[in-house]
Amino acid sequence: MAQRRKRLSKEVYVEGLLKGDKVSLSRAITLIESRLGKDQALAREVLSEILPHSGHSIRIGITGVPGVGKSTFIETLGRHITALGKKLAVLTIDPSSQRSKGSILGDKTRMEELSHDPLAFIRPSASGAALGGVANHSRESILLCEAAGYEVIFIETVGVGQSETAVHGMVDFFLLLMLAGAGDELQGIKKGIMEMADAIAITKSDGDNRPMALRAKAEYQSALHLFPPSSSDWYPSVLNCSALENEGISEIWQLIEKYKRQMQGKGHFEKKRQEQQLYWMHENIRQMLEQKFYTSEKVLSLLKATEKNVIQGKQEALAAAQELLSIFEKTQKKG
Amino acid sequence: MAQRRKRLSKEVYVEGLLKGDKVSLSRAITLIESRLGKDQALAREVLSEILPHSGHSIRIGITGVPGVGKSTFIETLGRHITALGKKLAVLTIDPSSQRSKGSILGDKTRMEELSHDPLAFIRPSASGAALGGVANHSRESILLCEAAGYEVIFIETVGVGQSETAVHGMVDFFLLLMLAGAGDELQGIKKGIMEMADAIAITKSDGDNRPMALRAKAEYQSALHLFPPSSSDWYPSVLNCSALENEGISEIWQLIEKYKRQMQGKGHFEKKRQEQQLYWMHENIRQMLEQKFYTSEKVLSLLKATEKNVIQGKQEALAAAQELLSIFEKTQKKG
Repeated sequence: MAQRRKRLSKEVYVEGLLKGDKVSLSRAITLIESRLGKDQALAREVLSEILPHSGHSIRIGITGVPGVGKSTFIETLGRHITALGKKLAVLTIDPSSQRSKGSILGDKTRMEELSHDPLAFIRPSASGAALGGVANHSRESILLCEAAGYEVIFIETVGVGQSETAVHGMVDFFLLLMLAGAGDELQGIKKGIMEMADAIAITKSDGDNRPMALRAKAEYQSALHLFPPSSSDWYPSVLNCSALENEGISEIWQLIEKYKRQMQGKGHFEKKRQEQQLYWMHENIRQMLEQKFYTSEKVLSLLKATEKNVIQGKQEALAAAQELLSIFEKTQKKG
Repeated sequence: MAQRRKRLSKEVYVEGLLKGDKVSLSRAITLIESRLGKDQALAREVLSEILPHSGHSIRIGITGVPGVGKSTFIETLGRHITALGKKLAVLTIDPSSQRSKGSILGDKTRMEELSHDPLAFIRPSASGAALGGVANHSRESILLCEAAGYEVIFIETVGVGQSETAVHGMVDFFLLLMLAGAGDELQGIKKGIMEMADAIAITKSDGDNRPMALRAKAEYQSALHLFPPSSSDWYPSVLNCSALENEGISEIWQLIEKYKRQMQGKGHFEKKRQEQQLYWMHENIRQMLEQKFYTSEKVLSLLKATEKNVIQGKQEALAAAQELLSIFEKTQKKG
């Protein structure tokens, strides 16, 4: 396994990354995902070194429930982008699954053409990490890809868990893939995801599906009009597309480019990224504070019983919180 | 001012509350909202004493942007409920406004009939408190009202800030008031509020407004169908109503009663409350941990410069968070 290879020096990682070497990029991501203290320290150094070379890309979040045709869509849109001569990185987040090295192969198989494209780099997320970890790894992987010269970054998620909010907080553009036929297929989409979308693409808008897909477009378009626009005055569009027949794909890419131009013109693009960076700093602080609290032995020894009291209405929520907090603080002073 | 009155004993508060005495209820809420340490300790004792007598009500969150006709709606629905012989408490949350005693009078004026109704109790929130404080005060005020025998509790918010999420987390039923004419009026509604609604009532569905209001109902109904149902299988309805002509008001009350029956039948009612209690315990823990961190002198002295580095891309978000955390932890051990 990659983690067990000899640790390279910071200079070797940085040089390889800035040359755009795929193997270096891959190994740097593995380094970032490592839980070993020494790897983490080295990862911090590498990141700090490449930070000035990051940022020059468009970061695109792509989500949708299983069955919506994400892989085929990404492969088709991806090939369109590399055909324009642009370097594309595809990062996948799925904190719920316990991916093994085997499924990395699986990922490459499901995007077979893209994985052989010299301009494309495909990388699934580390397996089984907590969401906070996955989010940090993904954000940092984006920076590494950018330092390696990738101009377009896809962050793919599954569309059923809480990772969408995290991804929304690290991308410039959030694309939601939907199936026509507003029936059971949609039940899987988590509440709130639709409101985060900068665009909705209705996949498989071909053959017998076409009339239904056109109807779905109209329905979603009018539903989205009921929501207020984002602070940047962008009204999300709904598009039909067919990866199978390569229809509507270039329109989606044009829409994303239009978004980037429009946001850059108004200064919203950079501003959104700055806000995202600040958000992540405070989010990391929050997560670390909570982790400290919830892994404290003293807290753990009392938590279950306290929760039970609160559930049964024997103790009010605030009073219970105050009690646990003051116990925690005593352990901190001793520590 | 009430806070400066002689402090009563726990027994006097509890006895007055359990008798359903409005003056005692009012003074107990003032006690809860007090920032004085001694008041807070007494408030904890009172709450702990009345906790077993709380819970027997339906808690209804009502929100909508200014101009939607909230006061008139609440007055009309409120009168309908007290006419059925039920005791109704109306609590108002508006963390953004700096309410004075004057506007408490203002609140009573804007619901004039209800404020003279012996079965009704109207109480605006404390002024200018932080959201965490307001949320805790409101949750605890609900418990006090319940102990005083109020069977229906309205929690009213303004529909433009973040207090809606907090209110959604403390009520059984969340009602969103909307105006017909999906134009500028809606811009004020914060993203995500629509998805929290258990029902949407389109106010002022009368006179010349009527055709537009009926169209709006159809539009919202079909938009809501695009969202997945909540875990309790409740599909939110859209209703037209006119407080002016007292139309559609009893239908809204019937819908709320139907909701309660249906949720109780499936055990969802109690389960949701238990989850809310747990949520608030952990939410309070989070808030207290963050407060401790962000009010630390050492952190405050470094925060601005660190934020600037993060915004300018000189430091990565995670690295910045780790640095601040380790500095904070050193101060904790000394403290």
